[in-house]
Amino acid sequence: MFRQLSRHANLNNLTSPSVPRSVRLAHRAVVFTENGDPASVLKTVTYPTLPAPPRDNVNVRFRISPINPSDINVIEGVYPSKPAPSDSLSPGHKLHQPVYVPGNEGLAEITEVGENVKGLKKGDWVVLAKQQPGTWSSARTISVEDVVKLPVDLSEVNAATITVNPPTAYNMLRTFVDLKEGDWVVQNGANSAVGQAIIQISASRGVKTINFIRSRPDTENLKKQLTELGATRVYTYDDLSDKSFYKSVKELTGDNPPRLLLNCVSGPATAQMTRLLGNNAHVVSYGAMSKKPLTLPTGAMIFKGLTAHGFWVTKWYTTHSREEREALFAEIAKLKLREPEHETVVLSSSLTDEEAGEKVREIVRKIGEGKYGKKVLLKIEDPED
Amino acid sequence: MFRQLSRHANLNNLTSPSVPRSVRLAHRAVVFTENGDPASVLKTVTYPTLPAPPRDNVNVRFRISPINPSDINVIEGVYPSKPAPSDSLSPGHKLHQPVYVPGNEGLAEITEVGENVKGLKKGDWVVLAKQQPGTWSSARTISVEDVVKLPVDLSEVNAATITVNPPTAYNMLRTFVDLKEGDWVVQNGANSAVGQAIIQISASRGVKTINFIRSRPDTENLKKQLTELGATRVYTYDDLSDKSFYKSVKELTGDNPPRLLLNCVSGPATAQMTRLLGNNAHVVSYGAMSKKPLTLPTGAMIFKGLTAHGFWVTKWYTTHSREEREALFAEIAKLKLREPEHETVVLSSSLTDEEAGEKVREIVRKIGEGKYGKKVLLKIEDPED
Repeated sequence: MFRQLSRHANLNNLTSPSVPRSVRLAHRAVVFTENGDPASVLKTVTYPTLPAPPRDNVNVRFRISPINPSDINVIEGVYPSKPAPSDSLSPGHKLHQPVYVPGNEGLAEITEVGENVKGLKKGDWVVLAKQQPGTWSSARTISVEDVVKLPVDLSEVNAATITVNPPTAYNMLRTFVDLKEGDWVVQNGANSAVGQAIIQISASRGVKTINFIRSRPDTENLKKQLTELGATRVYTYDDLSDKSFYKSVKELTGDNPPRLLLNCVSGPATAQMTRLLGNNAHVVSYGAMSKKPLTLPTGAMIFKGLTAHGFWVTKWYTTHSREEREALFAEIAKLKLREPEHETVVLSSSLTDEEAGEKVREIVRKIGEGKYGKKVLLKIEDPED
Repeated sequence: MFRQLSRHANLNNLTSPSVPRSVRLAHRAVVFTENGDPASVLKTVTYPTLPAPPRDNVNVRFRISPINPSDINVIEGVYPSKPAPSDSLSPGHKLHQPVYVPGNEGLAEITEVGENVKGLKKGDWVVLAKQQPGTWSSARTISVEDVVKLPVDLSEVNAATITVNPPTAYNMLRTFVDLKEGDWVVQNGANSAVGQAIIQISASRGVKTINFIRSRPDTENLKKQLTELGATRVYTYDDLSDKSFYKSVKELTGDNPPRLLLNCVSGPATAQMTRLLGNNAHVVSYGAMSKKPLTLPTGAMIFKGLTAHGFWVTKWYTTHSREEREALFAEIAKLKLREPEHETVVLSSSLTDEEAGEKVREIVRKIGEGKYGKKVLLKIEDPED
């Protein structure tokens, strides 16, 4: 017991001193108590094994939880949706100070079902329909209302990354323009997770894609990879400065010019890309990686009927039913999307909270410095007791 | 006859030498044969009295024809719609070289009706439903299909300026947001002809307006004028640099923030104005007087549901029936809009074509230099014969 107290002595008093020593300290969460630089404000806490779930609730353990760019923004306090503060991560066990558990996405597995829970059983894979549910934790008790069961034929990584990027791509491709086989779509940031999903979903329907990426040392290699994924053409933003480029794309798309431009970059290059579009086209933005505003030629809006929209998958979830979400996941599962390039980072059971916290801060610091070229998936093990 | 030949000796051979001397040269048009600076390429030509209109046609004389900014762009060749070339301004009288007659708007009066023309009689006031009909002329023969009869209770100036600016304002206010009494609309370029129509139409429905104008020596006077016209608030773009400004506007609009921003300026100030908008708002652009692209905050598009559209009244006309156009003009006539500030420029009958051409070039030169603060209305008299 001495060892245990010492291992958890660095919780900054987040764990109530009233927890009886006989309670097994068995779960772990990454938390923050106030917004700020994730490389400074994140900590981990350990909390007691969950009691049996109450009526209409289930206990879950999280198998994998991605670190998405928006999670970083949530911790910084610059994202419009925020997790609710929790003063208890394990029912009956109150924390001294409310904490926020980040993580908007993740694959959970049901470990125990409460009374009156129908259609779900131990071992089922689920995701959480609730926004900002706090997936950077090893186990939680969740209302059955917030649980969406996944199709059975998904890989663990595809299941853990199914709620944000693929639905963003899928919905943007069906909401704004009625795309038919042979139609063209233009996108920037084509190497992003959403971009790769756009390429694959389009290709599965015979929709052709004109993809833009940043020029980089291995541009040709990346072009090859995206082409293998189904991209029809891959260009760099540099091509947009070449006047003859527009002519060659016009020849390519002929009398069926693109009417959909999917944007996660913004800035002046996006305005140039609108020159590739036909009449009554739509620019749909889901990000602004350039950190610059979206710039659009007013003339194209007035005379060519160009319209600009944003797309936020969080809003899609709040305006669509559980049945619609399940139907969407079933559609996405059928597509057998290639797993995003990823690196799994384990917060191992043998780490103290202090060590685990330091590891998390180190990861987000590296992400912030752009040192990960791939998606980081957190695997948070229950701490040793 | 000698005098007449000499007066029309500077037509650059546009008038056919085959016109018999006995034909009375009785009408006049402003024309150009190739695109370029209007202060250089415009000429006037004189052509014979119109014969009686054929079946399903009417003869009209133009009473007043505005010079709109888009007319200048048409002559420069930078506007997407163009007049058709005419090789005959008077049926049966062919020109050596086809000419373009500018002018998209104007009040015409029927002077003679052809066989089978119903519902129209001599003296009726009409406008032309056809785009780029060439209103900078004194008389033309027009197919009855292209004629829309005006309500009887319009002033001459309001009738001559009814087809472009008021329908732009009216349609933008009804197409994108279902505005109710007490709702707010934001606009820039509030002193433009469309801007003033927006103020008046909004006020007539109890819709409140937040109006932006450029700072100028007589700002306070202009604010007073727009307020008298019905503007709820008038600000300058300078106010947008003041952080407390946004708070004060938020207090003003309370829990009913504006959801419509009407833009004819573009550039970075328009992006700042979007901060005044509530969720699910629409930016509708009908001009870009700053000659800069439209800049929008991508975050507002993604997280606040901001959408951006263009509006072009020419497209509205091509997609709406004659009945819908007449209904719109009837609605606009009821509003008794204040006449736009204007100056009427007469191309008097006593001028030679050379003199008339020089006068037109001088006017458009002054317009190009921004020396007219008001709308110029051309009144083209038939030349003396």
